Amino acid sequence: FKLAVLAGDGIGPEIMAQALKVVQAVCTRFGHEFSCEEALVGACAIDAVGDPYPKETHHTCLNADAVLFGALGSPKYDNNPNAKVRPEQGLLKMRKSLGLYANLRPVSVFEGMEHHSPLKEERVRGADFMCVRELTSGLYFGKPQGRSEDGNTAYDTCIYTREEIERILKLAFELAQSRRKKLTVVDKANVLATSRLWRQVAQEMEPRYADVETEYMFVDNAAMKLIQNPTHFDVLVTENLFGDILTDEASVVSGSLGLLPSASIGVHTSLFEPIHGSYPQAAGKNIANPLAMILSTAMLFEYALDAPEEGRCIREAVQASLEAKVVTEDLAEGTPAYSTSDVGDWVA
Amino acid sequence: FKLAVLAGDGIGPEIMAQALKVVQAVCTRFGHEFSCEEALVGACAIDAVGDPYPKETHHTCLNADAVLFGALGSPKYDNNPNAKVRPEQGLLKMRKSLGLYANLRPVSVFEGMEHHSPLKEERVRGADFMCVRELTSGLYFGKPQGRSEDGNTAYDTCIYTREEIERILKLAFELAQSRRKKLTVVDKANVLATSRLWRQVAQEMEPRYADVETEYMFVDNAAMKLIQNPTHFDVLVTENLFGDILTDEASVVSGSLGLLPSASIGVHTSLFEPIHGSYPQAAGKNIANPLAMILSTAMLFEYALDAPEEGRCIREAVQASLEAKVVTEDLAEGTPAYSTSDVGDWVA
Ligand SMILES: CC(C)[C@H](C(=O)O)[C@@H](O)C(=O)O
Ligand SMILES: CC(C)[C@H](C(=O)O)[C@@H](O)C(=O)O
Repeated sequence: FKLAVLAGDGIGPEIMAQALKVVQAVCTRFGHEFSCEEALVGACAIDAVGDPYPKETHHTCLNADAVLFGALGSPKYDNNPNAKVRPEQGLLKMRKSLGLYANLRPVSVFEGMEHHSPLKEERVRGADFMCVRELTSGLYFGKPQGRSEDGNTAYDTCIYTREEIERILKLAFELAQSRRKKLTVVDKANVLATSRLWRQVAQEMEPRYADVETEYMFVDNAAMKLIQNPTHFDVLVTENLFGDILTDEASVVSGSLGLLPSASIGVHTSLFEPIHGSYPQAAGKNIANPLAMILSTAMLFEYALDAPEEGRCIREAVQASLEAKVVTEDLAEGTPAYSTSDVGDWVA
Repeated sequence: FKLAVLAGDGIGPEIMAQALKVVQAVCTRFGHEFSCEEALVGACAIDAVGDPYPKETHHTCLNADAVLFGALGSPKYDNNPNAKVRPEQGLLKMRKSLGLYANLRPVSVFEGMEHHSPLKEERVRGADFMCVRELTSGLYFGKPQGRSEDGNTAYDTCIYTREEIERILKLAFELAQSRRKKLTVVDKANVLATSRLWRQVAQEMEPRYADVETEYMFVDNAAMKLIQNPTHFDVLVTENLFGDILTDEASVVSGSLGLLPSASIGVHTSLFEPIHGSYPQAAGKNIANPLAMILSTAMLFEYALDAPEEGRCIREAVQASLEAKVVTEDLAEGTPAYSTSDVGDWVA
């Protein structure tokens, strides 16, 4: 298979190197062959060619079976939302043009890691759910967006079509079927017209997935429940902006941001990345935790290559590295911290 | 002074009765006089006159110095977002027509109550911040909102004007000045045009409040930080929908939903209510916790009547009831539970 490799900014290149070692090791063991094509995205792409998501990068992604993505963002462009070109624009352009409509974020707590959570251990123990966020529509992309002529009024538009909603709900219902058969549809149907369409479509689809227990929850209530009782959830599905907020909130529950991967399923290809950022302070120091990036390759095998055994294998190796305390400084507690590349070598 | 008393649905009437006892006690002690006018809102208003916020109620509110509000919502109207008339519509109509533009929600952990939090005690101890939510604009009220003719596309509109933003930021800056002088402006300026206007206006106002340390935070990041480090915040200000999600999330941090009051500051009057709902299962049983409603009267004295001493007095009485364990079943741990009216009597 062919991978597009977008290391991105900050610690991206370092953690990507570890992920590729792991992919290589798995391929050797299972008798697969793969090739990589690297491409630029984010601040490094702005610096190089003035565009955070250049055409060549887009073609590299389209030609690949899947995309591995590191992280994006640089202090140079931070806190300047009015700058003409920003790394995040590259991210949104990439999502839209690759049709990456479903962002999947598993949240689970690795055994023995419960004490890292800001929540009381008894609340998080056993939490294991999947957040499904719509990624290419809603308030992020709706038109019109902008300012009145005098600059004193600003507006954004949230739009959803039935097709967009059906597409992601289908994926969420199927995911629920493959898991504990429980789906939570999160919306704000008591206020928003788009949410009422979401709820209507979900209610229409429900009978087709009779084995799935479907519930509806308002987004404000979900924001509470995620903390009060994270074990309540199995699959949670929601629109783009609610998903942005809730998936980040949910990620904190586990207490180990450095252990959370994600997958973005698309029309043209799919993309796999850790949920953490580019951590510029650590760039080049060989200290960043590569495990979320490595776990993203497990999702790659499962979701893009239909090779669950290979994915399981990677996940077990990561669990073993945690047990053996072969971990970077963010997870070392009393025990010596390993370097990024040492952890990568060990897992591979 | 004159109070409009909107007890609302469910446990509303029971907890309101306790709040009025406390207001009476404070007035006796401080030599004030007050009168009450009751009015209907919510499901009980739909049942009685077919309108969740009837005209007479509106006039009662306009004629009062402040509004005391219980809770609203009934299972009868739940899970039916497509119903023609819903209690929540009354709430939104009330906010809009009274111009209640700023919702203030203090989040703090009463001494000795830290163990109720889902967060580890060391994370919440000392947390004490104020959420300020814009309440009459944004995606909740923007037009157009609705469906395409074929019903297969839905849209909502988020609009903010400079005046709306300035008005609430002014209040937030001033609140910060009266507290620990730190303001967190929460937006999604890396994606939304309305957020970029919010950030621009805030940046323009900053120099006028030079004693306030102002920071800007993206909403997804704020959703994480509230759990990771709630003591980080002093005053947090944000737009309507973000505020809906974040204030509910923040309320869980304290672990005692039954202890959280709120104030909605308006153009024409102001309104005080507990943040919890109408809790229909407990209605009529004299078991609901009246303390959040009682603490809302403390905010009434402070924010509507400019009587901070009276407010402090109520807060101290509530703290004393917690220490004496004169509390309802939700807070009783091992000790006997008191009834709603017993707690009200004791505090009064
Ligand atoms: C950087 C930003 C545009 C992006 C988003 O809001 O989608 C990020 O927060 C994310 O969740 O991937
Ligand atoms: C009931 C609903 C319309 C309301 C809101 O979203 O504002 C509620 O959640 C609140 O926060 O007061």
